[in-house]
Amino acid sequence: MIDRLMNRIEKLANPTVVGLDPTYEMMPQTIREEMIERYGKTTEAVGKMFLRFNQEIINHIMDLVPAVKLQIAMYEKYGIEGLTAYTQTISYAKAMGLLVIGDIKRGDIASTAAAYAAHLGGVEIEGLRLDPWNEDAVTLNPYMGFDGIEPFLSPCNQYDKSIFILVKTSNPSGKEIQDLIADGRPVYAHTAQLVSKWGELAMGINGYSRVAAVVGATYQEQGLELRKKMPHTFFLIPGYGAQGASGDDIRGYFDRDGRGCIVNSSRGIIAAYQKDGKCGAHHFAEEAREAVLAMKCDLGGIS
Amino acid sequence: MIDRLMNRIEKLANPTVVGLDPTYEMMPQTIREEMIERYGKTTEAVGKMFLRFNQEIINHIMDLVPAVKLQIAMYEKYGIEGLTAYTQTISYAKAMGLLVIGDIKRGDIASTAAAYAAHLGGVEIEGLRLDPWNEDAVTLNPYMGFDGIEPFLSPCNQYDKSIFILVKTSNPSGKEIQDLIADGRPVYAHTAQLVSKWGELAMGINGYSRVAAVVGATYQEQGLELRKKMPHTFFLIPGYGAQGASGDDIRGYFDRDGRGCIVNSSRGIIAAYQKDGKCGAHHFAEEAREAVLAMKCDLGGIS
Repeated sequence: MIDRLMNRIEKLANPTVVGLDPTYEMMPQTIREEMIERYGKTTEAVGKMFLRFNQEIINHIMDLVPAVKLQIAMYEKYGIEGLTAYTQTISYAKAMGLLVIGDIKRGDIASTAAAYAAHLGGVEIEGLRLDPWNEDAVTLNPYMGFDGIEPFLSPCNQYDKSIFILVKTSNPSGKEIQDLIADGRPVYAHTAQLVSKWGELAMGINGYSRVAAVVGATYQEQGLELRKKMPHTFFLIPGYGAQGASGDDIRGYFDRDGRGCIVNSSRGIIAAYQKDGKCGAHHFAEEAREAVLAMKCDLGGIS
Repeated sequence: MIDRLMNRIEKLANPTVVGLDPTYEMMPQTIREEMIERYGKTTEAVGKMFLRFNQEIINHIMDLVPAVKLQIAMYEKYGIEGLTAYTQTISYAKAMGLLVIGDIKRGDIASTAAAYAAHLGGVEIEGLRLDPWNEDAVTLNPYMGFDGIEPFLSPCNQYDKSIFILVKTSNPSGKEIQDLIADGRPVYAHTAQLVSKWGELAMGINGYSRVAAVVGATYQEQGLELRKKMPHTFFLIPGYGAQGASGDDIRGYFDRDGRGCIVNSSRGIIAAYQKDGKCGAHHFAEEAREAVLAMKCDLGGIS
């Protein structure tokens, strides 16, 4: 998936991934009213809202960006019906030619991680293989070590999928554990070293591993340092836009050829219509497209 | 929930939580055949198998144990239909008077954690409150710090729910990050200190906080040390039985009154029929009951 992602980034000259992280508050009034009328005040209504909203956004950005990232929590919040919108959005995005990253941040002991690995590898029922989730890549949490990562390597290599492991997150309190100094360097540097090492087990063909990393845009020095120490690790960069970082802030996260990263923006794109309100809620998807073009321009000098 | 849990442990004289972590391989042949016949080779069939299996187990253990723990990965593996079995099992267990821990190990930045907090606090749709998950407690991952924890405190206090934060996990590679030495002590000790501190924000009435910890049974020295340092933190102890630890190994995890812990066993109970096979698969639930009684006996000297 890393190779396919890099090819699409190059073709579109755009290392942007759009975060499809809908909230109830983001739903335009017309969509909200229609679904409440049809499905009542139910989680099903919210799931239908999210799906419609996402489909409209996808229709307006699919020719501009290589991938979308879905924060599963936004869907999981609404239970089974929310997660149904998650899987339906994935199917729709893939049908439109987009790569899909599931931002699931799972992490557990070996046998449990093997179950979560079904996100990438599917399941087999009496010899029949099914793919109930079918993301191209997922994010993972490293706190439990390699046990929680290893079961994902086989689907990465077998089906050309990828995993993005949290190394340095963009949130303020990420430092409470990640920045503890152990043996003269912070915990996230140890995590980075582990991720690099694990990455050797799943190399792609363009010089980057299918084992990738999440490195927040909000800590530039650390980003630069990690790029140097992880020359074969592709970065997913959250924290652009709504969380404060700009294109200039993350220039050094890319390699010398302007490759090696994809930059996420969620609210900054999908809720752009709520920010400036130029065209009103009816045009939320057009506003998202405008926001993608502006972000592409901001990142344009890089790749 | 911690207070209700402690009361039930005392009443039943049993600090056992049964892990309802079904796998396809655990399903007795009769259940497997019936569901495949009715639903085909589908994830729906597997969901129906898991629900039937869990209901039978619950029927045979509900008078013996205070709580069940569901490892959500085992259900998530089978997509929406698997997760439907997860929520249906929760409803059934609660209707039978059991407390339910959702072993979800989520962890993310603040706005995302707020979405995950719906597991405990439910959602509101146009003024109507719904509870699509409805666990009594969930497990959480601390790698992203307090941002990822804080949104759960309000439902803990408002609805008397609990969270169990990973401190020291039972798996071999847990040590890769958790045992790094920072400022003269391991990362898990820092996590323990954070969990203690966060716990002050959600104290129960029996001397323990609603912010609890996961401390693996497989590292006894660390368990003893953590009990001393965390006098107000309730422990969920995985790693008993199938992962190797016995009642003697975890004696020191309890406080002087024999309180402060609940011990999980999953495979050792629900797949007991596959281990000795005395009665055959038709009696898997009776075998689970026998395994619970044996575990109660093993832990009996403690509480």
